Amino acid sequence: MTIVPERITLPEVDRNVDQELCRDEILAAHHGGKLNITPSVPLGGARDLSIAYSPGVAEVSRVIAADAGLTKNYTWSDRLVAVVSDGTAVLGLGDIGPRAALPVMEGKAALFKAFGGLNSIPLVLDTTDVDEIIETLVRLRPSFGAVNLEDIAAPRCFELERRLVEALDCPVMHDDQHGTAIVVLAALRGACAVQRRRLAELKVVITGAGAAGVACAEILMAAGVTDVTVVDSRGILVPGRAGMNEVKVELAERTNPGRRSGGVAEALAGADVFIGLSCATLPERLLSTMAAEPMVFALSNPDPEVRPDVARRYAPIVATGRSDFPNQINNVLAFPGVFRGALDAGATRITERMKLAAAEAIFAVASDDLAEDRIVPSPFDPRVASTVAAAVARAAGEPEGGHAAN
Amino acid sequence: MTIVPERITLPEVDRNVDQELCRDEILAAHHGGKLNITPSVPLGGARDLSIAYSPGVAEVSRVIAADAGLTKNYTWSDRLVAVVSDGTAVLGLGDIGPRAALPVMEGKAALFKAFGGLNSIPLVLDTTDVDEIIETLVRLRPSFGAVNLEDIAAPRCFELERRLVEALDCPVMHDDQHGTAIVVLAALRGACAVQRRRLAELKVVITGAGAAGVACAEILMAAGVTDVTVVDSRGILVPGRAGMNEVKVELAERTNPGRRSGGVAEALAGADVFIGLSCATLPERLLSTMAAEPMVFALSNPDPEVRPDVARRYAPIVATGRSDFPNQINNVLAFPGVFRGALDAGATRITERMKLAAAEAIFAVASDDLAEDRIVPSPFDPRVASTVAAAVARAAGEPEGGHAAN
Repeated sequence: MTIVPERITLPEVDRNVDQELCRDEILAAHHGGKLNITPSVPLGGARDLSIAYSPGVAEVSRVIAADAGLTKNYTWSDRLVAVVSDGTAVLGLGDIGPRAALPVMEGKAALFKAFGGLNSIPLVLDTTDVDEIIETLVRLRPSFGAVNLEDIAAPRCFELERRLVEALDCPVMHDDQHGTAIVVLAALRGACAVQRRRLAELKVVITGAGAAGVACAEILMAAGVTDVTVVDSRGILVPGRAGMNEVKVELAERTNPGRRSGGVAEALAGADVFIGLSCATLPERLLSTMAAEPMVFALSNPDPEVRPDVARRYAPIVATGRSDFPNQINNVLAFPGVFRGALDAGATRITERMKLAAAEAIFAVASDDLAEDRIVPSPFDPRVASTVAAAVARAAGEPEGGHAAN
Repeated sequence: MTIVPERITLPEVDRNVDQELCRDEILAAHHGGKLNITPSVPLGGARDLSIAYSPGVAEVSRVIAADAGLTKNYTWSDRLVAVVSDGTAVLGLGDIGPRAALPVMEGKAALFKAFGGLNSIPLVLDTTDVDEIIETLVRLRPSFGAVNLEDIAAPRCFELERRLVEALDCPVMHDDQHGTAIVVLAALRGACAVQRRRLAELKVVITGAGAAGVACAEILMAAGVTDVTVVDSRGILVPGRAGMNEVKVELAERTNPGRRSGGVAEALAGADVFIGLSCATLPERLLSTMAAEPMVFALSNPDPEVRPDVARRYAPIVATGRSDFPNQINNVLAFPGVFRGALDAGATRITERMKLAAAEAIFAVASDDLAEDRIVPSPFDPRVASTVAAAVARAAGEPEGGHAAN
């Protein structure tokens, strides 16, 4: 088997990545996978083997058999994150199946260790049936301590996450929903601080009513944004509109307070914030119809809804999902600390309060050095994961309830 | 939580392990589990992240989406062993459940890396239903490249293994059956070489008709032993006897050529080889009824069927399952090399021929230095796993068929 080297479509503006990536360099880096399992105990001699395996391990098994609560002391499982996908919504590539999803899941597991210090195993499933996925994870429950759902298509992902949270007594989070939502909220808090505005006064338009779009709408409202309008491929979500699934019907009731209908043009007129979470291109002319000093978050990857250099002609604050532009909305700011904090606290759920606390923590790390092109911290800021983890762990101990608007 | 240090029951004779193990030392060694996942790619900067994760990983996913065969090049899955247990027959502890089994599975995964250089993840299942276990592993199939079944009770383990081999297009082996059987055969070959005897002339008695007992009977017959008698807790397996499951009924037809009935006393009279794979004590007086120069393999752990110092009064060659006596019949001599060889060869099955080749390879490593107290190599002999792997990989390319007796 030979791979013919060829160039992939790449950033037009490439500021942080010093060399262009080429296909054969990427493939070479992924050769054999991206994860390694190593023993954390010595195994070099007979005595080591007697301790780590037979006969010594029998004593450990006996201890856990007598008190299952000690599993967390003497196995890796209670701090192990299963990164679970069915491969139906992989990056921007769509339903490419579990095998093609695996490189992404391995990457995610690698990031869990590098950024959160957590062990993590990729589990890709050869079924897309919600009942079967839940059943499978329930049967595997003693093997792990948390579930990061990844790249599972909407609207199935909503039902899957909701039912899995009920079925498992451990933290479960669909990162495409909540990881994105947490970082978007943190970025919006940062942008508001730069512009000395309050979340509650913003008119926000979100394009895309998939996993990320719906979760962003939810967290923004939970954080105090009162005017959120969501637009899907058929137009603005508004009660009574045709072609809406259950999740959209429910969301339409609680968003779009002006009950506007139409498309993205009607939604954006006079809006303060554009949050792009669909792959649809945003025509430049619509940016000029937004309110003064708008914020533009063009988050589709690899191609933002609008080129950031174009967007900056209209908006002082522009964010994308890419590492080669300023203000990268990168989930790695959230998920390692969120899971780390939840596991540190022994939490069995990742609550809304914990997600809001994570966003606030990301904002707090950035807050000493905010600027129009620095509304979120760098993913490599070493303070991020620990600050998020501490805030999430603290919030895990607090009851769910109302949240003050900022 | 405090663990009160206390001593565990320990070897009376302790020759290789220089210090006695104590409970708190063992528990401390297992704290937090015994495995670590580490990224095998650099993740220290934006460019690293662009290669290992987004956007670079999309290229890898695309390549696999276009050709699923490339999964083996660009993920860890095709060389990843899932160590799977339902916790129903853990060491000598019995049905203690999946959580209490996990320390053993982690240990096994650690040994896979240390001895076979293979990545391995423990998957413990909260179900003991054969259909459900198979269904779960079929759904997870894209996540791994081989299955090591472990500590699953007989007779369920026989059906599970047989059906799983059919259901999955990758190597599957129940180590309690075949790992043990391979090493027993290697040891018997070694013992025969020391005593200048042939396998075909031996009268062999196996006590225990569980996973290991049945598999040992099978591999010995496949290797050319013609006179094997199996004894379970109700006596000798003989056609027509009451209280036999399907596996035993079938085995009774093909063993015990003299059609003897009775108990272990009747079986052992005149036998050349005793292979103990039950936990029942063997009364010393029965050893004196065996044929001249018998071989005694008292393999129960941690307590052999007969003390090796007692057995040696009657038998020049004595083996146990323990590291603190000579001639340790240790599965780690087999499973790392067996799976390594199967995966190196891209085999989809672990055939009888591959198991026989593994036994022959273990014997071959020991053959330059055989003695009554050295019928198998040390588990730490660095030649073992590579020699076994090479032999297994070679045998994977050969058709199944008849085998010559030694």
